[in-house]
Amino acid sequence: MRIVVALGGNALAKRGEPMTVERQRANVATACSALAPVAKEHELVITHGNGPQVGMLALQAASYDAASSYPFDVMGAQTEGMIGYFIEQELGNLLPEGKHLATLLTMIEVDPDDPAFSEPTKFVGPIYDEQTARKLAAESGWSIKPDGTSWRRVVPSPAPQRVFELGPIELLLDHGSVVICAGGGGIPTMFEPGTNILVGVEAVIDKDFASSVLARDVSADLLVIATDTNGVYLDWGSANQRMIRRAHPDSLAEIAFPAGSMGPKVQAAADFTRATGHPAVIGSLDQLGGLIDQTSGTVVSVAARGVEC
Amino acid sequence: MRIVVALGGNALAKRGEPMTVERQRANVATACSALAPVAKEHELVITHGNGPQVGMLALQAASYDAASSYPFDVMGAQTEGMIGYFIEQELGNLLPEGKHLATLLTMIEVDPDDPAFSEPTKFVGPIYDEQTARKLAAESGWSIKPDGTSWRRVVPSPAPQRVFELGPIELLLDHGSVVICAGGGGIPTMFEPGTNILVGVEAVIDKDFASSVLARDVSADLLVIATDTNGVYLDWGSANQRMIRRAHPDSLAEIAFPAGSMGPKVQAAADFTRATGHPAVIGSLDQLGGLIDQTSGTVVSVAARGVEC
Repeated sequence: MRIVVALGGNALAKRGEPMTVERQRANVATACSALAPVAKEHELVITHGNGPQVGMLALQAASYDAASSYPFDVMGAQTEGMIGYFIEQELGNLLPEGKHLATLLTMIEVDPDDPAFSEPTKFVGPIYDEQTARKLAAESGWSIKPDGTSWRRVVPSPAPQRVFELGPIELLLDHGSVVICAGGGGIPTMFEPGTNILVGVEAVIDKDFASSVLARDVSADLLVIATDTNGVYLDWGSANQRMIRRAHPDSLAEIAFPAGSMGPKVQAAADFTRATGHPAVIGSLDQLGGLIDQTSGTVVSVAARGVEC
Repeated sequence: MRIVVALGGNALAKRGEPMTVERQRANVATACSALAPVAKEHELVITHGNGPQVGMLALQAASYDAASSYPFDVMGAQTEGMIGYFIEQELGNLLPEGKHLATLLTMIEVDPDDPAFSEPTKFVGPIYDEQTARKLAAESGWSIKPDGTSWRRVVPSPAPQRVFELGPIELLLDHGSVVICAGGGGIPTMFEPGTNILVGVEAVIDKDFASSVLARDVSADLLVIATDTNGVYLDWGSANQRMIRRAHPDSLAEIAFPAGSMGPKVQAAADFTRATGHPAVIGSLDQLGGLIDQTSGTVVSVAARGVEC
C-alpha cells in the first residue's frame, strides 16, 4: 500500500516540555519506532507539524532583533529542514542499510482569493500583553487577537491547492524511498496575480489539510492522521463520550467538532475519502499498526453506514 | 552534461550587507539568472554555502537563551531548508512550467578518526571578547581561538566521506529534476563507533569538499566552483599576479594557496578531477556560461600540461 502518515505536533514536542534538541529527538525516536515497520512493508510518506518549532524560532529572532525577523514562509522552510533531519536520521537508524530516505522541501500553492486572507485565525509566535501587541501590530502590519488573557499575532490559514514537488515525491515513492515532506503543512506560496511568479506568503497551512491534498495527489491507498488520542469521539469530555469506530464522510460533516483540535482532522480525512474513495484513519501514533489495518482508531470510509461507535 | 555547481557564500549574502530576507532573496535571484540557462540545457545539481546564515541563527539563539542553542548539525539542517527554499523558488520562476526542482536534505558521513576533530579550525558564530569567550568555552565545552582582535568559537571541519541521499539525488537527476542539495557542505554525521547508529556532529564540512565528493559520486561530467573572482591567480595581490587558465591537478598541488579562501576550492577541484578524469572549473558566477564551456575561469584538467596562464 501507499500510505501517508501525518504526525501531530505532539509526536515531536510535548506540551510544556522544554524545546531542547534532546527532547525533540527523543520524541521523534519514539515516533520512528512506530513508523519503521510501516516503512519496511509499505510505500510511506511522512508529514509533520511545526507549530512549537516555528514559535521557538520566532521567539529567538524577536529577542535578537524583531525588525529583521523572518516571515513565516521562511521559518517554515527552516523547520522543514530541522524536523525532516530528525525524522530522516532517527528513522534511518531503524531501517535496513540501503533503504532510501528523502526529505523534500515542499511548497504548496494557496489561492490569493482564499477567504482566510481577510480573516486571519491562526495564532503564531510569542504571547504579548495587549499594549505590546498593539504596538507591534502598528509597526509591522500584523493582525493580532486575544488568546485567553494574552494577545498574539494571527496569520491566515488558507486551504492548500497543490503541492509543487509532486513529481519528485511520486518518483521517489515509485522507487522505494521513504519520503518526508509537507512539514508544517508545506510552505505557503502563491502566484502574484496576473503573473507566473511564485512568492512566499505570510500564512500557515493546516498540516492535516496539506497531508490530505498530498495523499490525494500521490494516489495514496490510505491516509493516517496520527495524534495523541485513540480516535474521534462523540460528546467528548461528557459522561456520554464514545469513540467513533467507522463513519461515512458525509455523516461526519453533519457533526460539529472543536475547530482547534479534532475539527480539521475530521475534515481532512473526509476530504481525502470523498476525493479518492479510499479510507482515512484518525488515531493514536502508538497504535499505528492497528490504524493501518483499520482495527484501531476512527476509520473514515465511503463503505461505512452513517456513524458507527 | 551532468554538472554540479557549488555556489559561494557571496552568491547568497554579500559581506557587510544586512542579513534580511529581501537582500538574500535578491542575491539568490541574481544567481538564479545565471543558473536558469544551465538548468534548461543540462542535468544540474546546485550546492551552496551557509556560513552567514548559520552565524545569524547562532546570534538569534544566543540572544534568546544561550543554553538551549541548537548544535551545528541542527542549524545546518535549518539553513538547508531556508536557502534551498530561496533557490528553488527563484530558479523555478525562471524555468518552464513542468520543470521539476527538488531540494533535498543532505547528511554526509565524516570519519570519527578524522584529525580535524583534534584540531578545530573553522570559525563559527558570533565574535566575543576574550573573557566572554573563555567563560562560554568553560561552560559549554567549546573550543575557542582568537580571530584578529576578537575571539570566536571554532569547530572541526572534517573531510566528507559520502552522501547518504545519493540514491534519491541520482534518481531525480536521471528523471530531469534540478536538485538542490548538500547545502552548507551537508549535515555532518557519523556512526557511533562500533554501531550502525548515525548521529549528528558539532562540525562544519567545507562546502567545496562536499560538492567535490558529491560530483564524483553522481558521476558528474563537470564540477563548477562559482565564486566572486574570475579564476585562480598566481601571486595574487602582487604586481605580478596572473590568472591560471588551465592546470593539471598535480601541478596545482605544488602551489601554496591561502587556506581561508582559494586553497580549499583548488583542492576540491583537483580531487574531483583526479578521481574522475573529468574537468573542474573555478570562476565567477556571472560568467557561468563561459565556465561551463571552459572559456572562462580556471580549468583543472588531467589534459592540461602543468600550469598554463
